[in-house]
Amino acid sequence: MVETDGDLHGGSRYTASTEAVTLARMTETDAWRELGQQLRVDSVRAAAVTNSGHPTSSMSAADLMAVLLSKYLHYDFAEPRNPRNDHLIFSKGHASPLLYSLYKAAGAISEQELLTFREFGSRLEGHPIPELPWVDVATGSLGQGLPISVGVSLAGKYLDRLPFRVWTLCGDSETAEGSMWEAFEHAAFYELDNLVAILDINRLGQRGETMHGWDLNSYANRARAFGWKAIEIDGHDFEEIDRAYAEAIEAHGQPTAIVARTIKGKGVKAVENKEGWHGKALDDPEGAIEELGGIRNIVVEVAKPEGDAQPHEFETGSLELPTYEVGDEVATRKAYGDALAAIGSADGKVTAVDGEVSNSTFAEIFRDAHPDRYFEMYIAEQQMLAAAVGLQVRGWKPFASSFACFLTRAYDFIRMAAVSRANIRVCGSHAGVSIGEDGPSQMGLEDLASFRAVHSSTVLYPCDANQTAKLVSEMAGLDGIAYIRTTRGNAPVIYGSDEEFPIGGSKVIRSSDDDEVAIVAAGITLHEALKAADALAEEGVNVRVIDLYSVKPIDEETLLATAEATQGRIVTVEDHWPEGGLGEAVLSAFAQAERRPEVVKLAVSGMPGSGKPAELLAAAGIDAEHIADAARKLVGARAVA
Amino acid sequence: MVETDGDLHGGSRYTASTEAVTLARMTETDAWRELGQQLRVDSVRAAAVTNSGHPTSSMSAADLMAVLLSKYLHYDFAEPRNPRNDHLIFSKGHASPLLYSLYKAAGAISEQELLTFREFGSRLEGHPIPELPWVDVATGSLGQGLPISVGVSLAGKYLDRLPFRVWTLCGDSETAEGSMWEAFEHAAFYELDNLVAILDINRLGQRGETMHGWDLNSYANRARAFGWKAIEIDGHDFEEIDRAYAEAIEAHGQPTAIVARTIKGKGVKAVENKEGWHGKALDDPEGAIEELGGIRNIVVEVAKPEGDAQPHEFETGSLELPTYEVGDEVATRKAYGDALAAIGSADGKVTAVDGEVSNSTFAEIFRDAHPDRYFEMYIAEQQMLAAAVGLQVRGWKPFASSFACFLTRAYDFIRMAAVSRANIRVCGSHAGVSIGEDGPSQMGLEDLASFRAVHSSTVLYPCDANQTAKLVSEMAGLDGIAYIRTTRGNAPVIYGSDEEFPIGGSKVIRSSDDDEVAIVAAGITLHEALKAADALAEEGVNVRVIDLYSVKPIDEETLLATAEATQGRIVTVEDHWPEGGLGEAVLSAFAQAERRPEVVKLAVSGMPGSGKPAELLAAAGIDAEHIADAARKLVGARAVA
Repeated sequence: MVETDGDLHGGSRYTASTEAVTLARMTETDAWRELGQQLRVDSVRAAAVTNSGHPTSSMSAADLMAVLLSKYLHYDFAEPRNPRNDHLIFSKGHASPLLYSLYKAAGAISEQELLTFREFGSRLEGHPIPELPWVDVATGSLGQGLPISVGVSLAGKYLDRLPFRVWTLCGDSETAEGSMWEAFEHAAFYELDNLVAILDINRLGQRGETMHGWDLNSYANRARAFGWKAIEIDGHDFEEIDRAYAEAIEAHGQPTAIVARTIKGKGVKAVENKEGWHGKALDDPEGAIEELGGIRNIVVEVAKPEGDAQPHEFETGSLELPTYEVGDEVATRKAYGDALAAIGSADGKVTAVDGEVSNSTFAEIFRDAHPDRYFEMYIAEQQMLAAAVGLQVRGWKPFASSFACFLTRAYDFIRMAAVSRANIRVCGSHAGVSIGEDGPSQMGLEDLASFRAVHSSTVLYPCDANQTAKLVSEMAGLDGIAYIRTTRGNAPVIYGSDEEFPIGGSKVIRSSDDDEVAIVAAGITLHEALKAADALAEEGVNVRVIDLYSVKPIDEETLLATAEATQGRIVTVEDHWPEGGLGEAVLSAFAQAERRPEVVKLAVSGMPGSGKPAELLAAAGIDAEHIADAARKLVGARAVA
Repeated sequence: MVETDGDLHGGSRYTASTEAVTLARMTETDAWRELGQQLRVDSVRAAAVTNSGHPTSSMSAADLMAVLLSKYLHYDFAEPRNPRNDHLIFSKGHASPLLYSLYKAAGAISEQELLTFREFGSRLEGHPIPELPWVDVATGSLGQGLPISVGVSLAGKYLDRLPFRVWTLCGDSETAEGSMWEAFEHAAFYELDNLVAILDINRLGQRGETMHGWDLNSYANRARAFGWKAIEIDGHDFEEIDRAYAEAIEAHGQPTAIVARTIKGKGVKAVENKEGWHGKALDDPEGAIEELGGIRNIVVEVAKPEGDAQPHEFETGSLELPTYEVGDEVATRKAYGDALAAIGSADGKVTAVDGEVSNSTFAEIFRDAHPDRYFEMYIAEQQMLAAAVGLQVRGWKPFASSFACFLTRAYDFIRMAAVSRANIRVCGSHAGVSIGEDGPSQMGLEDLASFRAVHSSTVLYPCDANQTAKLVSEMAGLDGIAYIRTTRGNAPVIYGSDEEFPIGGSKVIRSSDDDEVAIVAAGITLHEALKAADALAEEGVNVRVIDLYSVKPIDEETLLATAEATQGRIVTVEDHWPEGGLGEAVLSAFAQAERRPEVVKLAVSGMPGSGKPAELLAAAGIDAEHIADAARKLVGARAVA
């Protein structure tokens, strides 16, 4: 339903050129047309504020959104956390002027706020962020909104079990991103009939025409081949738009793609269907507004979701974390799976996704224990991460797992998850050269660096099974991007099951009053460090060993004390490239310390090959022998000096 | 043509159970069948060596490869660098036992070498690497071989202009990767009729059935919707295989996908079409070999490429790098484009790819100057990087550009390019908060960390236009992964056009005999550092300013001398997250130095928003004022101490 405040000319500095129209007397179509023009006008006005933004990309989709807002969207703007609300996700996040204009038309933001667009301190940023309560996730990196929408739709259909719909506005350019086709594939596989993708085919990308121009058929055929229902329409014909949405909400067992032919910059001759106007404010906003019929202040009473259904809740029991006997040989990846299943039993919000390697990451233990809360994402790591982000939109607590190396595939999604202020948990297994025969393509050697360089991240690297279980349990409650690195091979359990491992802490495993050098390690190298310490002890060299299981945040206090206690001699050792990992995290902790120790940083510097784990640890110079050598030299060198 | 050495039983420890067969008397089909069985047997034998590897994934594609090797592949194994050779790329790199068995069947490697598979020191690694001269690129991260093949095919059709074909063996599981569909899209768009993708539809992934099982049609329909010719066959029916290849080589203007129904583990009942046998050596290799008809030593005389055509060469002139007047305001991204076009004029091997942002990265200057050597990759960063890797396979020198933040999309491809020992050059523009209004989704704040943590990488970050031009020129000659970070906004030219900037160097821009503190910066923050130094100079504090344009390799010598000269007081400042970037690179340089300075590390720690560049630099605490404050405190604190 469309209503007006009676003053379509608005109170702004722009003068409208059309007569006031009484919307009450209008046909539905005319009212949509008026609203579409208002959305265009407001997009032009918003971009004029800082002379930046994407008005032309907003104008192409204005009519599509006008009908959606007026008739099909069910959303309580006063209660954005209403679980029954539909979700409106702008995969083409650069059309933010349109999104904010919709919020204004829905009465959610004021005209005044709209006109802070892109100003410092405004929550109306260049691309949408969830600081706005109606924004689920940050977009602006193209090709992410649709795969994230798949995650929200999975939550709606299989977890919440609520009838909300997910409406996702996509650009045509972004269909070049493979992640879009991961989304098409998974949405069809999971029969997401609650998902509607609206493809705004305005023909023009940033620097020219898209591959397919206005060939709607090429898009529709691809969508159909991937198992979707596809409807081709003129995106400026209100009857066709209306009919397409009506068809979409009747979908059964299949997601719907509305493939709409639109015109970029529609309504303003100076920019309409013209190259060179992507991401630019209009030269003459006043003239454009006049051409569009002037400022309007239509307010739409958006339909609220019906009923009072609440999200489904899964039954839970008490938390019984797995425990392991000290001395047993257990892989940390195995403990990850055991612990994940255990916390899933205690917390019904915990869910898991995995990229077709659940029998390696041991996410399969969770899958078998909680099949209703597990989603197989096949070999599609971008979709896997996006699904996790989508699930947490609805308050679920997703854990996503794959080989550490393959998480590089989803790095943009992890980066953007941080911009989304998302709370997700990620496990990278098979980290480091210690995986053995598979060779370097399967070795995660950059994960500590890449996850450290993510805003809001926590980076954990356990060395034994009991520690892993405790850390996995803590991850469930963490905000931001929580990452845990696990190891392929078995390792001895060294901690009792009653030990605690707070985030940001570390463990001093070996120490004496006259330690001459410290070894800081984590994960697999911790065991090598202990062997080295044993060997050195036999030679009469006392070594402090620090288990730096929390790489970020880091235990500065213990590190500073360690440098004091060992006369500033530290060896760091990591199964990782030398850059950005444990060693540099340690160096950063000392950057402004009173005592800045000499740090010998052992890491993998040459390209590894295949071989037995022990052979590869030795070849990389990070086994017990190399650690002991480094410590020996450090002590000796200083003794001589 | 198939030949035999007359001893089909081979000399190995396994005993063959079949009678010797005289291949000369065989029909073509029978010979192919024998060869297929040999490839299976050899795959089983290879995996038995270290009891690891993927024999069952090899066995499904053995018949497909037997026919290819015997009749369709044109390859001179004695001269792997012959430019007319076809290319055989295993996108399903885990089928390496099959690939190595093919090499043995082609007489390229000995039986003895085959049986070093996955042993430490063997070049027959778990997944193929180009240390083997017949391997173009490392595979093993699924979904990469096909997009890289697109790059090789682009080179063949548009640059080399040679009639070689690219044959790419793909797994069914990996079609879940979006990067595969980026490849499908681009191959069709560029009409790559020299590309044949062979899809080995063996139904089973690592942990169970794929999404589509043996539904060949679902694959073929997708391929056709993306503009490919698709041929569905039984992958164990030699006549169908033969006919499909014959059709594929007749392709015109369209790539071909051969969608072959195959059986994983084919030929050995214990594992045939059974779950739970992915990535495992067989329990009873001797029994399996017997079941497969025993060891054979068929050697195929692979057809050599015909003629003596040489790769096309582009005309070149002398190198005239762009120069800029000191004091002019020029964006480094603009200088990147200018310089790239210039080196393209001087070196006909230089090529460029860009992800639909060439008007932002300024790769468009190269495109306009050298349209024949530019490939538009649309918004498909994975395919863009893969194309670069493919182009360098044929000796071209690709530069790939996008916004720095969107390169995160291709991080797995960059990681694997290093495993491929590829020589590629990458430019990330619009780095840092200084881009302004677009907001955090468009700000590359992790690129220094992620590119540093790549084997063989060089990381450059110029601050002015003349420096950018020189560094771009040097990149053309670099091995490995060379990365350059450029900035959106204009900055004053501070260097004369005759200055040199060697890789691994730095510039001491300000210095005196009594410097009290040093500021180490690069790119945009270098200009802020200079302003801070000016302000401090007015207060009587002498500041040394280091331009660390080469972040990796780093100029340790200058840094060590700087710490000595400034009594160990250093401020680092970077438009990047605090982790893994310039600051930590500097700390690493001092890890074992005699004098380890106190380092105040300024970086972006909070999530930025939209705003003017100056507002955002200030909010992040990395503008001149914050730098001066930090330096002041450092000097003051020490003076008091």
